[in-house]
Amino acid sequence: MNKNKKALSILMRTRMRPPSPSSSTNRINHMQFPPLDGGGGVSSSSQDGSASFHTDFERVRESMHSAISMNKTEILDAALDDFSEGYFGLHNEDRRTLLLTLAREYDLNRIQVRELMKQYLGLELPSGDKAAENVHEEEGSFSAFYRIERNLRHSLKPMYEVLFERLNTHPGGLRFLSIMRADILSFLAYHFWTPKRNPKHMSFQGGKCSVVEALDSYLKEKLITWLSPANLQLHHITWDDSASLLEKIVAYEAVHPISNLLDLKRRLGVGCRCFGYLHPAIPGEPLIFIEVALMKTVAQTIQEVLWDDPPTPESEATCALFYSISSTQPGLSGINLGKFLIKRVIDVVRRDMPGISTFATLSPIPGYMQWLLSKLASVERSGSTFSENLLKPEEESALLEAAEEFATGKNGMEVMRNLLSSTSYEWTKSEKLSLVLKTPLMRLCARYLLQEKKRGKALDSVGNFHLQNGAMIGRMNWMADRSEKGLRQSAGVMVNYIYKVDHIEENAQSYFSKGEIQASDEVRAYLEPQEDLQEEMKD
Amino acid sequence: MNKNKKALSILMRTRMRPPSPSSSTNRINHMQFPPLDGGGGVSSSSQDGSASFHTDFERVRESMHSAISMNKTEILDAALDDFSEGYFGLHNEDRRTLLLTLAREYDLNRIQVRELMKQYLGLELPSGDKAAENVHEEEGSFSAFYRIERNLRHSLKPMYEVLFERLNTHPGGLRFLSIMRADILSFLAYHFWTPKRNPKHMSFQGGKCSVVEALDSYLKEKLITWLSPANLQLHHITWDDSASLLEKIVAYEAVHPISNLLDLKRRLGVGCRCFGYLHPAIPGEPLIFIEVALMKTVAQTIQEVLWDDPPTPESEATCALFYSISSTQPGLSGINLGKFLIKRVIDVVRRDMPGISTFATLSPIPGYMQWLLSKLASVERSGSTFSENLLKPEEESALLEAAEEFATGKNGMEVMRNLLSSTSYEWTKSEKLSLVLKTPLMRLCARYLLQEKKRGKALDSVGNFHLQNGAMIGRMNWMADRSEKGLRQSAGVMVNYIYKVDHIEENAQSYFSKGEIQASDEVRAYLEPQEDLQEEMKD
Repeated sequence: MNKNKKALSILMRTRMRPPSPSSSTNRINHMQFPPLDGGGGVSSSSQDGSASFHTDFERVRESMHSAISMNKTEILDAALDDFSEGYFGLHNEDRRTLLLTLAREYDLNRIQVRELMKQYLGLELPSGDKAAENVHEEEGSFSAFYRIERNLRHSLKPMYEVLFERLNTHPGGLRFLSIMRADILSFLAYHFWTPKRNPKHMSFQGGKCSVVEALDSYLKEKLITWLSPANLQLHHITWDDSASLLEKIVAYEAVHPISNLLDLKRRLGVGCRCFGYLHPAIPGEPLIFIEVALMKTVAQTIQEVLWDDPPTPESEATCALFYSISSTQPGLSGINLGKFLIKRVIDVVRRDMPGISTFATLSPIPGYMQWLLSKLASVERSGSTFSENLLKPEEESALLEAAEEFATGKNGMEVMRNLLSSTSYEWTKSEKLSLVLKTPLMRLCARYLLQEKKRGKALDSVGNFHLQNGAMIGRMNWMADRSEKGLRQSAGVMVNYIYKVDHIEENAQSYFSKGEIQASDEVRAYLEPQEDLQEEMKD
Repeated sequence: MNKNKKALSILMRTRMRPPSPSSSTNRINHMQFPPLDGGGGVSSSSQDGSASFHTDFERVRESMHSAISMNKTEILDAALDDFSEGYFGLHNEDRRTLLLTLAREYDLNRIQVRELMKQYLGLELPSGDKAAENVHEEEGSFSAFYRIERNLRHSLKPMYEVLFERLNTHPGGLRFLSIMRADILSFLAYHFWTPKRNPKHMSFQGGKCSVVEALDSYLKEKLITWLSPANLQLHHITWDDSASLLEKIVAYEAVHPISNLLDLKRRLGVGCRCFGYLHPAIPGEPLIFIEVALMKTVAQTIQEVLWDDPPTPESEATCALFYSISSTQPGLSGINLGKFLIKRVIDVVRRDMPGISTFATLSPIPGYMQWLLSKLASVERSGSTFSENLLKPEEESALLEAAEEFATGKNGMEVMRNLLSSTSYEWTKSEKLSLVLKTPLMRLCARYLLQEKKRGKALDSVGNFHLQNGAMIGRMNWMADRSEKGLRQSAGVMVNYIYKVDHIEENAQSYFSKGEIQASDEVRAYLEPQEDLQEEMKD
């Protein structure tokens, strides 16, 4: 008995490995999917355990054709099975060729579309006023409009829609479509693609591929419809769930990797919650899941959340802290299920735990260092005396003094860049240096989060995700994540986004329409001197 | 204790009433929905218990406008609630006016559609051959095509799509949409409609209303997508289900009404199965359900199925008899969920009970008498000596002799019509008369089932339903349903449709493409003399 207990205890502490060596490429961070590298396709197939053999391309192509063009539904099921099995057996390059074939050869019938358009343009547009006077004439002309419009709607659907629709209602088909879309995204991210077979047809290299982009945008729209929140079930994930489901949580937790079974058990235990969205067609595998810690105050470091014992008694909790949200499906990139999940979870927690009034995140800032280092480098390159100094004079002199023994550089910015880009993170080991860097790093982080944008949206992907969901920036936390990843991404800074229940929609709306970012006074305070500086720089 | 048992026994035998007096108008027979009369709308609303007050039309119209045009999702939820509550409070006539407003004022932007079409027609269609040679040029011109096609797809969506989409993801919205569609169908069936408010806009009377037809066809397509079998759950309905769910089975059982709790319990007990399709957004209310009896042989009368005690021991059963399939949603008319339900149930029964090899129905023939009586009347009216005699000479003389004391008429057909159209069904009480009528009634029934068509499909709605699902006509059964309804609809004849697992798809396909009806030799045998007769008539 005692022996068993000991064995269990060892098992629980054993470092966990994701179910397949490739699954790390499937990890998705905070709803933002990095362009899949060439391995994207393989990782999907190896998950299905069928990458070991190579299927004949032509056979798969034929089964795809059958799956699109057949009528008899029983044989159709077999054709769909054939096609998906064959697809999983294809090498990456063959998958790409097949997707390109699908996009090109099962496109619209443009001759028919043009014919209908000509008919339509030949109709006289009925005017509202006249219509009221002679209803029967109006009726006749409207009915011609509706007829051609309906026909046009149908003929504007590419032929590959049939394949998507059929797969969606076929067992396992929705999951297959999600993998297919992951492959399409990997195709689109794979810029320089050299042809293998049919070189005549496959001869483009690099650049855009709008025929595959059209395939992607069509499939994405379909997936958005099929995965509408009405079709998803919120599931409270607990230690009583099946091992096969929990294994997926371990494999796909992208933000703070789960180290062993004890760690997992703790994240599902007292003081914690984990919720996932399940689709009936993909049972036992949440499409996305969120981890929540119930706390007395909004946590400032990930240490408090994950490792500080013991957890807060639930009756004393006033805050639900979302510390991780991970998607399991690279193929659902750009389909914001997280937004609905967060709202549903807020509703459930408010209903079940009236003592909780604060809903906040403790989030990474994945793009901060990348932005800052390239900003420092570009200022350096320009070399002009008029170029912006990212450091204030007093920050620069303090830094130059403290950094003497760690890094060199012709000015403060170069020293800063050298310190921050060193992968040994020496600066974090010197208290003096950390202190000197804190001021500019926090100030520049506020600038990055509040002012740096791309097409009117926050440059930081996690920031953009929470802001579009209606959160505000509540607080920045120094040395909140000392892990290698945390230091590399954001010099250890983390941020609390706050979901104020009464302002979620208003914030989401003003962010969406005007790009306005809501932030607390505390965060704004970092910026004011910076704004003055920018004013000066403009002169 | 004994007293309680007695009370329970009385309760179990108490005749059951549908949950609301109006629900009888909601009963749908075998997937074929009769045109809803003026009461259709009211019945939906009274189910929601809000028909008692009359909502102000303008207020509902405004909430509809908000629900379509608003952006903020939180207030949007309130607007959708407002709109659906308001809608339920409207009188039938106001609902119709509102639906017409929705169809007319939230239609396409046709100016924009025409503009895009003109742009599109201005593009040069890239040829496949040229494309292969100059990929980059092809790329540019294709991307213009895709862009305009995508824009056209969007602008060909009527504005009311937003309302449908928003309601679909709103709690209770899918159910509301189903009620709204029932109202649209009732609108379209309500030919002579006199205007009440805004007479200038509402002045058409009778005839087609293609703007509302377009609304209906659009909503129907949306519902088909949302209710795809992938989103439906098969539920085995048992006596352990909630009273509120079982109440719905009682209310909507359309084929063989459930008389009391004992009857219901028997239909869910040993030797029986009941399966329903549930959608996650409409919990506790199967959209459609099917009742199955497990039997030693294919039943010939409904008596054997419903009332003969005791049921077959399940281990001895070789046949699964589908004796009733009912839809609970008039608004899902034309969306064939029954087809998928039957296939799923066949799969489940085959898996769980390998002893069962025959899958058959015992089905009513709802249109037989209506067809026969109008056929008899039209032959009579034409009065020509060359017109078809539906009776063979020997049938006619036997009938004239046997019918002497029951009915008069100048010939056999007139006597037959008088006998069959009498609502006292005297003919069933005379053994002699029944015997004499049996031969022509069975023969003509085979003709009705196998040869009478409308637009290439079987005229009988139940027949068309099973044939399009891939069944064949197996056997006709004399005096199989002696209920008033059975005699009125089909002179008591019922039919066994057989689902042969290996031929389902083939049959469905040949029925769909060529209108071919598969039937057993036994059924065909009724027809051969009739075909000879038809040959003679043509000369």
